[in-house]
Amino acid sequence: MNYKQMTVVLKSFQLRTEPYCDIIDITQQVQNAVKKSSIKDGIVNVSVAGSTGAISTTEYEPGLVKHDIEDFLEKILPYNKNYAHHKTWHDHNGAGHVRSFLIKTSQTFPFQNGRVILGTWQQIIFLELDEKPRSRTIYIQIIGE
Amino acid sequence: MNYKQMTVVLKSFQLRTEPYCDIIDITQQVQNAVKKSSIKDGIVNVSVAGSTGAISTTEYEPGLVKHDIEDFLEKILPYNKNYAHHKTWHDHNGAGHVRSFLIKTSQTFPFQNGRVILGTWQQIIFLELDEKPRSRTIYIQIIGE
Amino acid sequence: MNYKQMTVVLKSFQLRTEPYCDIIDITQQVQNAVKKSSIKDGIVNVSVAGSTGAISTTEYEPGLVKHDIEDFLEKILPYNKNYAHHKTWHDHNGAGHVRSFLIKTSQTFPFQNGRVILGTWQQIIFLELDEKPRSRTIYIQIIGE
Repeated sequence: MNYKQMTVVLKSFQLRTEPYCDIIDITQQVQNAVKKSSIKDGIVNVSVAGSTGAISTTEYEPGLVKHDIEDFLEKILPYNKNYAHHKTWHDHNGAGHVRSFLIKTSQTFPFQNGRVILGTWQQIIFLELDEKPRSRTIYIQIIGE
Repeated sequence: MNYKQMTVVLKSFQLRTEPYCDIIDITQQVQNAVKKSSIKDGIVNVSVAGSTGAISTTEYEPGLVKHDIEDFLEKILPYNKNYAHHKTWHDHNGAGHVRSFLIKTSQTFPFQNGRVILGTWQQIIFLELDEKPRSRTIYIQIIGE
Repeated sequence: MNYKQMTVVLKSFQLRTEPYCDIIDITQQVQNAVKKSSIKDGIVNVSVAGSTGAISTTEYEPGLVKHDIEDFLEKILPYNKNYAHHKTWHDHNGAGHVRSFLIKTSQTFPFQNGRVILGTWQQIIFLELDEKPRSRTIYIQIIGE
């Protein structure tokens, strides 16, 4: 029987981030990881290990990534508020935790012929939601044949 | 060795949508795609390529899909507001973009014996969040054995 | 050819929950399921079948799970409000349905060497969002090699 071999490939890369609502386009790193894996068809899970970051998609243009998304998150989950979480650790990142819970730390995408299926104006983004600059590891788990 | 063969099958279908907050039940298309794939057990990733659509689940009854979800989204992300995104392209779909970022463009489900595992009152939905009617391609990536 | 065999393993477990905003740490059940599956590398999809529960992650400490997340959800989606859903079934869990739609009923994580990749302070949680105590089945679909 002549078939393609199913397999799993884990890639990762580092990001240096700015605090509060730093939105970073990671589409190219994900596309490159899929391409280099030599897996043609499957799904790719993009995740951050941590509870103050998040993964989603948006059109990566300044209006959305420098203003609208941040304004929205600040309206529903302002940083300058007395979260119960602050009493636990005496830090000040309660908003970042609840934002990460809401947006979530991972998203899974299909790919075909070595390319992640996205819209023309759709980019994969990492959101730094913590109150300090961080070094983040983004994991890219690729599974397919 | 006698084992089931792991494989990947990509299906897709088209939707014609209405603008603003059109919520469409796509459960049957996803169930049919899994059934026709002949893959018995695995996971299925449902996604839309684009930055003004979204995938989630709900009980598909008129109170929720014609009123409550729309009222909620309109409260936290009203269309009639001056988003910075509007200056970039001179369109008026900033709310649709941030809603898509929030709800996300994909969700992954388990399936067993050729059926997606869902609650009795749980349907998979596509949300049109753009300001114009659209033709949408929904991708169903099935992986399993 | 000497290669690891790709496979799929479905596990599940039961939870007894409290109503409104019961947040339960299910990290250990997910880690154990992955470990017992004998699959070393892959992805794990954690899901609840139903439209008033949700899956996400957070730092599982009392400030967040007993106060901040509940306060946030109550602010944007209060239980004591007249949802259109209530007219359909004459129940009172409209807020639970829209919360489940928003947070979503599943999340997918990568694992390596039999361990789910999470941050040190990041736990996988189930959220009971219904107005009554429930018995819930959590599904853990593991796929990899």
